[in-house]
Amino acid sequence: MIRKYVVSSAQMGPISRQDTRQDCVNRMLEMMKEAAAKGSRFIVFPELALTSFFPRWIIEDQAELDTWFETSMPNADTMPLFEMAKALNIGFNLGYAEKIVEGGETRYFNTAILVNQAGEICGKYRKIHLPGHDEPQPGRRHQHLEKRYFEQGNLGFPVTPMLDTRIGMLICNDRRWPEGWRVLALQAAELVCLGYNTPDDHSGFEEVDALADFHHLLSMQSGSYLNSVWSIATAKCGLEEGSSLIGNSAITAPSGQIVAQSETLEDEVINAEIDLDMAKQYRQTFFDFGRHRAPENYQLISKRRMALPEPDDT
Amino acid sequence: MIRKYVVSSAQMGPISRQDTRQDCVNRMLEMMKEAAAKGSRFIVFPELALTSFFPRWIIEDQAELDTWFETSMPNADTMPLFEMAKALNIGFNLGYAEKIVEGGETRYFNTAILVNQAGEICGKYRKIHLPGHDEPQPGRRHQHLEKRYFEQGNLGFPVTPMLDTRIGMLICNDRRWPEGWRVLALQAAELVCLGYNTPDDHSGFEEVDALADFHHLLSMQSGSYLNSVWSIATAKCGLEEGSSLIGNSAITAPSGQIVAQSETLEDEVINAEIDLDMAKQYRQTFFDFGRHRAPENYQLISKRRMALPEPDDT
Repeated sequence: MIRKYVVSSAQMGPISRQDTRQDCVNRMLEMMKEAAAKGSRFIVFPELALTSFFPRWIIEDQAELDTWFETSMPNADTMPLFEMAKALNIGFNLGYAEKIVEGGETRYFNTAILVNQAGEICGKYRKIHLPGHDEPQPGRRHQHLEKRYFEQGNLGFPVTPMLDTRIGMLICNDRRWPEGWRVLALQAAELVCLGYNTPDDHSGFEEVDALADFHHLLSMQSGSYLNSVWSIATAKCGLEEGSSLIGNSAITAPSGQIVAQSETLEDEVINAEIDLDMAKQYRQTFFDFGRHRAPENYQLISKRRMALPEPDDT
Repeated sequence: MIRKYVVSSAQMGPISRQDTRQDCVNRMLEMMKEAAAKGSRFIVFPELALTSFFPRWIIEDQAELDTWFETSMPNADTMPLFEMAKALNIGFNLGYAEKIVEGGETRYFNTAILVNQAGEICGKYRKIHLPGHDEPQPGRRHQHLEKRYFEQGNLGFPVTPMLDTRIGMLICNDRRWPEGWRVLALQAAELVCLGYNTPDDHSGFEEVDALADFHHLLSMQSGSYLNSVWSIATAKCGLEEGSSLIGNSAITAPSGQIVAQSETLEDEVINAEIDLDMAKQYRQTFFDFGRHRAPENYQLISKRRMALPEPDDT
């Protein structure tokens, strides 16, 4: 079986506070058509692709906050994406804010789904590495309140069989945590998709902000290389409600080489033909986990949360 | 306390089969003097710095194999390094092949030590991620028999307090395994040193070999960035006994930026003034482990060795 096909990253420019779900979905439908015309079988949309990046704002009113969340998926606004996927025979990955009643409690997650070529949801991930703060930070031009508005994901790092491969999802800040990549790779993921909204104007350190694009690409390239997986990273980018978001959407090979990269800070589709069997060059040599990994020496990773200047207690 | 000082990487060009330990030590002494003249307080030498990279050869005779190993440290040949360290007030990291009797058994390790400014051994690491094979691979111009000649390290990933900081050691191929870096970071390492002998002519895939330098730097830069640590990587390099070894010795900041890099494939000292407190910009924001890590989701890393297309069994 030849496992070689075109995949796409559908970068989105800014979404304003006033834009409706329909506005966003219409932009995504245009890009889905463009990708399908190139023969693409899979397209990755950004994190929180249906709204402006609302965690930058302090929102005190729960009813107002709730307006940023989806309570079902698909819903009337997003159904056209599912229908188009089926019509064009193209799978997709979509990020959105999820409000759900589970165990009698209302819960809020930063969520991504995989939708197959039949237009059916076949995988769901809820973001684990939420960045930012749960309390507003005084003196900042923009907040980053993901820890306030979302609960930490409760689905682990699932891998979904689809498109003759196994796909894992990460969301934005997850790319900086080698553990997430590795848990996906240990479940034989071959392709990782990741949407993001990454501001470069409010880490609190200008010199860190100045490296935001470099850090994004370094994380994607090392994540792909060290785990022998293809990756597709998709930005929402540009100047959104006064906050600057990086672009540089990228499709990266298991070699760590970027094979397609966006050039704008606007809606832009990038495509690449990927050979899923390319990873074997790495998985049979440097990264043959069975021959080389030494889990008995990794115990601290799953036992200790913080860095502590104390002897290994494992 | 200002924790800012000069550190050095002492890259070595090829060591021939005929070169003696004294030959190698003399080259290292020259570089130690050069570094000290620049005010350096710490110098990192390569992996297996006292001999040619003998795992490229099939050595059937145990007595012959044993000649490549050190049975004590310091020994008569290496004592001048320890004396010079004390005289110049400079610590060092040295890699060598270690033969030792432990529990009544003769054991062989690919080892690195830390020596403090008093010329005393204060830390030891034995390489865990041994690359290559335990049986000769037919048809190869060079072998890579580390798994044949060395046992997997049995000291875990220790961190040593020294030079107003905490130093971790990795060796060569370890840099490609995010787990090693992370176990060091979780013990509050702030500086990681790594010697290497990295051939770019025998992975079995030409296109992989062609990326050897890129993969080396990608591993060092991501290891430093994702763990908020300084790193010092030191090559043995050049055409050694017909095998091509990469250079690109590098000192890398917690930002992932390379601040010093070798330019030759010969003996070459590179220096950089490092600010150990620079890492706080990262450890207080993106990489605040205590706020962001989620060990309950990382269990597979320490439980499963191989990649398996099966449900998470944790």
